[in-house]
Amino acid sequence: MLVVKAPGTRYMKQWCDHLSHLVPGLEIRPGTDEVPPEKVRYALTWEPPSGWLASLPNLEMVVSIGAGVDHITRDPQWPRHLPLVRMGGAEIGQRMGEYVAWACLHLLRLGRTYAVQQAEARWNYVNPEFTAEDLTVGIMGMGTLGAQVVPMLGGLGYSVVGWSRSRKNVAGAESFAGPEEFDAFIRRSNVLVCLLPSTPETTGIINAELLAKLPEGAAVVNAGRGPHLVVPDLVAALDSGHLSGAVLDVFEPEPLAADSPLWAHPKVTVTPHVASVARVKDRARFVADVITEFEAGRPVPNLYDPARGY
Amino acid sequence: MLVVKAPGTRYMKQWCDHLSHLVPGLEIRPGTDEVPPEKVRYALTWEPPSGWLASLPNLEMVVSIGAGVDHITRDPQWPRHLPLVRMGGAEIGQRMGEYVAWACLHLLRLGRTYAVQQAEARWNYVNPEFTAEDLTVGIMGMGTLGAQVVPMLGGLGYSVVGWSRSRKNVAGAESFAGPEEFDAFIRRSNVLVCLLPSTPETTGIINAELLAKLPEGAAVVNAGRGPHLVVPDLVAALDSGHLSGAVLDVFEPEPLAADSPLWAHPKVTVTPHVASVARVKDRARFVADVITEFEAGRPVPNLYDPARGY
Ligand SMILES: NC(=O)c1ccc[n+]([C@@H]2O[C@H](COP(=O)([O-])OP(=O)(O)OC[C@H]3O[C@@H](n4cnc5c(N)ncnc54)[C@H](OP(=O)(O)O)[C@@H]3O)[C@@H](O)[C@H]2O)c1
Ligand SMILES: NC(=O)c1ccc[n+]([C@@H]2O[C@H](COP(=O)([O-])OP(=O)(O)OC[C@H]3O[C@@H](n4cnc5c(N)ncnc54)[C@H](OP(=O)(O)O)[C@@H]3O)[C@@H](O)[C@H]2O)c1
Repeated sequence: MLVVKAPGTRYMKQWCDHLSHLVPGLEIRPGTDEVPPEKVRYALTWEPPSGWLASLPNLEMVVSIGAGVDHITRDPQWPRHLPLVRMGGAEIGQRMGEYVAWACLHLLRLGRTYAVQQAEARWNYVNPEFTAEDLTVGIMGMGTLGAQVVPMLGGLGYSVVGWSRSRKNVAGAESFAGPEEFDAFIRRSNVLVCLLPSTPETTGIINAELLAKLPEGAAVVNAGRGPHLVVPDLVAALDSGHLSGAVLDVFEPEPLAADSPLWAHPKVTVTPHVASVARVKDRARFVADVITEFEAGRPVPNLYDPARGY
Repeated sequence: MLVVKAPGTRYMKQWCDHLSHLVPGLEIRPGTDEVPPEKVRYALTWEPPSGWLASLPNLEMVVSIGAGVDHITRDPQWPRHLPLVRMGGAEIGQRMGEYVAWACLHLLRLGRTYAVQQAEARWNYVNPEFTAEDLTVGIMGMGTLGAQVVPMLGGLGYSVVGWSRSRKNVAGAESFAGPEEFDAFIRRSNVLVCLLPSTPETTGIINAELLAKLPEGAAVVNAGRGPHLVVPDLVAALDSGHLSGAVLDVFEPEPLAADSPLWAHPKVTVTPHVASVARVKDRARFVADVITEFEAGRPVPNLYDPARGY
């Protein structure tokens, strides 16, 4: 049996409908049903209640409903001996590419400035100094999603550089690896895009020290996780004039508090954690593939590595 | 002598500085100077005062400071026996591509919805149903700029179709030509992008009849000229729910009136005629090339055709 446990009854039902079609041999149940805990072999979940996974004695695998797994691993009782799979599929990369491309163009083409002027019914001609061909986007966290974003940015005229733990070979993106090459990467990034996973090493990584190293007039896009960004440091760098803008999709905590200074900041664009949420249909296909591979004893994709922490 | 005549003293001076370097043999003067009319051989202009061009007895060529020439040809005394050149250069296509890509993504990824929510400090999760790979962008006016926009949209995942008077062979964009193929083109366009020149035939082309033929949930981008769009028809189609949104850069008249219903419309994004204004540096290079070709007796690029009206 596979149990789907996530906020939202209708959402869970959607998942069950799709998976029942795709994995006909498996019993699929929403988290709202009372099910005998010993029957559950697979858990597909988003923000599981603390202790729930540990209460399933015959659980064999956990699949995250999103690309991050921090919403699962923050449960102290999370069963770390089991395989944990983060969400994949074609659509998640497509959507992240669209979001990052939109965010970079929104910063370049003064989208926030025009939105503020529109709110005041004010016509004021301001024209961006640069084109995408003058700028380099730095992707901090050149993983599955980062690699899919590169060709979209390249097609718009941007140069792209990427940073990760290990050296990457992604066409169209110069690779920087590890802490030694971090500064060189940051100094190249006119637009810094965070696509890191949330781990102890990456918490607070976008702080005053990093921001000071960005080129004059640089901008920041955070589509990773809220804890990556030190909000007061960002606001200070925007207000000093060193940074030209920011597009933020993720916050700590979410929803973003109504009294956050980010909402009204003239250089900040806020979106409600929507950078890449693929249709259930597409994600269900990925989950079905994972289960097929697992049951055939073959290696499953997108496996969480406890040593790396993501 | 070449005279630069446009609104803005500083702007005219910029033009003169660049051109003096690029065409050292030619005397370059701003429109603010008193110059003997008979000395002027070339006019580089934006919105010339009515009658000014006709007052120059030895004028040999007129060059428009922007890609449109309607701001010149609307002068009844405009000297139509002279060659009229519309602006070109590499940067104008790059910038138009960025603007159209941004506008399409802004519509797809609900940029206006999030801007309205941000203005109210309101977190409300809404996720787009489709990705770019599900949608077709229809470029109405597949000319110099349209052709440069195509690969940028293709790189983001969109399918592209184009409409023009004559059949085009642009890689990545199915070509529709003439009035006979107009309906087939419109019915394919999930996002209709207007890049037409302003002529009597194209005035009011985006009207209730056209909008009704667009697919359910379609969106409109106008980066051509204000007279292309019948504003009340657009607002009605947005309000009926048939259309999902619009991004508008051009208006009739400009600046857009402070009491226009477009400013506050929840589905409309307004920008102040900024879709593609290249740096003077890049445009001056184009003007210098035009003059070189003209003086060598070779054909000049981007020539206005009085028979077509653009
Ligand atoms: N906002 C949204 O809607 C949304 C949607 C989906 C995902 N996300 C975020 O995007 C993240 C990335 O997803 P993904 O699928 O691309 O993950 P992924 O394939 O695991 O990629 C993570 C990348 O980060 C690098 N990295 C991790 N820790 C690092 C460190 N300490 N120093 C340097 N590089 C480090 C990794 O380097 P190595 O490859 O060398 O190990 C890898 O390149 C998710 O974890 C999530 O936070 C957000
Ligand atoms: N908002 C801004 O900042 C901005 C900046 C630059 C330009 N623009 C606008 O963009 C327009 C296009 O510029 P461009 O350089 O690409 O011009 P262009 O090369 O002359 O292209 C115009 C295109 O429109 C087509 N067309 C003209 N009249 C038509 C008709 N009656 N029916 C069907 N197709 C018709 C032409 O078809 P054929 O090729 O078959 O003749 C051609 O493909 C300019 O005129 C201006 O209005 C706006």
